[in-house]
Amino acid sequence: MYIDHPASFTDYYELTMAQGYYLSGTYQKKASFDYFFRKVPFQGGYVIFAGLKELIDTIKHITFSEEEIAYLKSEGFADSFIDYLKNFSFKGSIWSVREGEIVFPNEPILRVEGNLLETQIIETLLLNILNFQSLIATKAARIKYAAGENSTVLDFGLRRAQGLAGIHATRAAIIGGFDGTSNVYSAQRFNIPAGGTMAHSWIQSFEDEITAFRTYSKYYPESANLLVDTYDTLGSGVPNAIIVAKELREKGYELKGIRLDSGDLAYFSKKARQMLDDHGFPKVKIAASNQLDERVIASLRSQDAPIDIFGVGTRLVTGDNSPALDGVYKLSSIENEPTLKVSENIEKITLPGKKKIYRYLNSDGSFYGDALLLNTEEDITRMHHPTFPAKKTTLENREFEVLLQKVISKGTTEIEMPDMNEIIAYKKERFAKLHSEFKRFDNPHIYKVGISESLLNTRNQLLNALKD
Amino acid sequence: MYIDHPASFTDYYELTMAQGYYLSGTYQKKASFDYFFRKVPFQGGYVIFAGLKELIDTIKHITFSEEEIAYLKSEGFADSFIDYLKNFSFKGSIWSVREGEIVFPNEPILRVEGNLLETQIIETLLLNILNFQSLIATKAARIKYAAGENSTVLDFGLRRAQGLAGIHATRAAIIGGFDGTSNVYSAQRFNIPAGGTMAHSWIQSFEDEITAFRTYSKYYPESANLLVDTYDTLGSGVPNAIIVAKELREKGYELKGIRLDSGDLAYFSKKARQMLDDHGFPKVKIAASNQLDERVIASLRSQDAPIDIFGVGTRLVTGDNSPALDGVYKLSSIENEPTLKVSENIEKITLPGKKKIYRYLNSDGSFYGDALLLNTEEDITRMHHPTFPAKKTTLENREFEVLLQKVISKGTTEIEMPDMNEIIAYKKERFAKLHSEFKRFDNPHIYKVGISESLLNTRNQLLNALKD
Repeated sequence: MYIDHPASFTDYYELTMAQGYYLSGTYQKKASFDYFFRKVPFQGGYVIFAGLKELIDTIKHITFSEEEIAYLKSEGFADSFIDYLKNFSFKGSIWSVREGEIVFPNEPILRVEGNLLETQIIETLLLNILNFQSLIATKAARIKYAAGENSTVLDFGLRRAQGLAGIHATRAAIIGGFDGTSNVYSAQRFNIPAGGTMAHSWIQSFEDEITAFRTYSKYYPESANLLVDTYDTLGSGVPNAIIVAKELREKGYELKGIRLDSGDLAYFSKKARQMLDDHGFPKVKIAASNQLDERVIASLRSQDAPIDIFGVGTRLVTGDNSPALDGVYKLSSIENEPTLKVSENIEKITLPGKKKIYRYLNSDGSFYGDALLLNTEEDITRMHHPTFPAKKTTLENREFEVLLQKVISKGTTEIEMPDMNEIIAYKKERFAKLHSEFKRFDNPHIYKVGISESLLNTRNQLLNALKD
Repeated sequence: MYIDHPASFTDYYELTMAQGYYLSGTYQKKASFDYFFRKVPFQGGYVIFAGLKELIDTIKHITFSEEEIAYLKSEGFADSFIDYLKNFSFKGSIWSVREGEIVFPNEPILRVEGNLLETQIIETLLLNILNFQSLIATKAARIKYAAGENSTVLDFGLRRAQGLAGIHATRAAIIGGFDGTSNVYSAQRFNIPAGGTMAHSWIQSFEDEITAFRTYSKYYPESANLLVDTYDTLGSGVPNAIIVAKELREKGYELKGIRLDSGDLAYFSKKARQMLDDHGFPKVKIAASNQLDERVIASLRSQDAPIDIFGVGTRLVTGDNSPALDGVYKLSSIENEPTLKVSENIEKITLPGKKKIYRYLNSDGSFYGDALLLNTEEDITRMHHPTFPAKKTTLENREFEVLLQKVISKGTTEIEMPDMNEIIAYKKERFAKLHSEFKRFDNPHIYKVGISESLLNTRNQLLNALKD
């Protein structure tokens, strides 16, 4: 489970509203909420959806413990409402795209239906889980894409993660395409390969660098990755690593790798590669770390830096310059009638009604574009741009996939949630169907997401009704 | 406690190094490590140190559970080392500045002494806790400073927090100067005032806005903060709030406030204030939210926007464009001999030896500058710039304070850790002693941090010895 007390992992207003719904007798109204985001982080072209399994596992465990009940009493909540909460559990239904799916702005990635109280009260928990894990899975996909399929990318972020965020940053990074982690806690819980060898303190704690290398290699003859930049990378680090590699070979072992953690990584990796090769160690891998991200890695790649393993920390696990996905959770219908919110910012006007997502395909099976339809619609032949509806796209004779599937039905899990390996495989399969122009880092092509004519008309009717 | 299994909330290399120290028999060497950061986040002038209480509470509970032992076995760690870990507990000592202290780059804010294994193995946990909470306490201090002492600043960030980071983001925000939170989970655990009233979904779930306002006010006549921007802020939201305020007054209540969540907050707050005042409600408070941070708030202040309460979310709890404090944990002595790491980046050369921090004061008691001294030194009359040592500052006849205090002595807590209210008060008291030129947002004055001549000489000797 995501958190020990999920019922109180929430914003206070979810509880004041819940009490208001309860006391006013409106809590049993039928409601539907959409989860969607408005902007792709990192100025990128796509988002990798992540966090679903944990959300679903956790929602089923929302109960109000004695501790939480006592807190609500002390805060002055009404006895009748508190009695209701004592027996509360989520009995609503949830439709979602699969974890690892490629998703885009304004798409109702996940829909919750149920009574007004139960659909409202899970808002904060849902946003907290999905926003962060989707953010980091996306960042990880970008970094893996820059490094290339033949490179290894490792999560080294726990020390710079935002506190306990490190736990799920690692999970999300693996979904996004990372190959392993240094994070022992998450490796155990999510069945992820963990690894790591030494810090500068290891080197400093011995009388000299070569003794530090020798000692480490003695106990880890098959897995040592020697950190070569403590004193002088090319002057002592790499030469000492080569001495130890020779000594290991005499004993029947091969040194696994060296790690560069400072300086010009392109320059040092080329020099180190040359030195290792010259001494007969072409298979010793070069790992690099130090403020890496997708752009630095792409630059290293473009310079043909012979780096096999990239250790990525801060800029992976925090999302760096885009530290939050702006996902929101908005009421889309009440008593099965579509509703919307207008707000003072046009881009914040919501899409009313219960909706579905069709993903249209190119003839080679790659993704062409997505349409948002009302649930009551069956097939459409064209879609409209959501904010400039005069712009239309024909969809005739295109194959499509239905993206939302029911995952919880009246409080009960409808399907078995995929495990980590299945989620990783799904992301990989789907990512391969997204053309590279959506994946580039500068000015990526904008993926088409349109709305059906019926959805457009419903929105216009509601907007017009408000203006009267 | 910070995390349920603190021993495994770590990087894998801490364990491989620990095993290497153990098997090679070097683990009982005496070691000291410093915690320090190199760069102030947010291009600011100071950092508020936070997270100490949780670090100390957690370090005392580091034990290897059966589950963790089983994992280490499955990973191939040696039986003798695993047997050692079964009885492991931290028996080292820790010196630290107080939680809530104002600190600056390169200062050894916290020092850990003990055997090499125990001082090494806590690295990741320590960095994870201190880096994040200090980051957010600093961001919070900046936001509170912009809002001013007479405004209320509330943490609304849980939904956009980096997953479980939300728990401690709230704690840190309060230390930094925030007045309350929407986060129920953290409010309970850290004894923080919580609050919040309604979302747009509350408004939408009723047939019209006025019914939504009336219903809420019926159940919360004394605490309602009506959200006025769902449909049309000045056209319906504020007028409806005024109607409800009049109805409440007839029943003997006063409406508490309204909240703006979109549009031009300066414009809308002025118009709303005028409308409320004109109808006899000068005491109804105006709350504002929507992508706020210290710069937006400072701009609103400079426009005389009559906003009483600022709800700050994403940009507080994630640290926005500076999502990590770059704090590190570096070996400073081994067997009581000073040591340093050189690296390929000059700014990454560490300060050797066990050190202390003296904070020198101006005659009015405000902070003048800090000196880093070797522990063996008593008094100094001048300090040197750490990277341009020719630049010197005289310290003669200045009062000073000793900043580091012993908090853990050989595994046992030495002093009672202050509670939240004491930490908040300490931050406030210290912050008042920092001149405003260090607090401004653009090009803040750089606070003086120098090193003693003995420390400078020790570093030079070690660097020279390496070059030989």
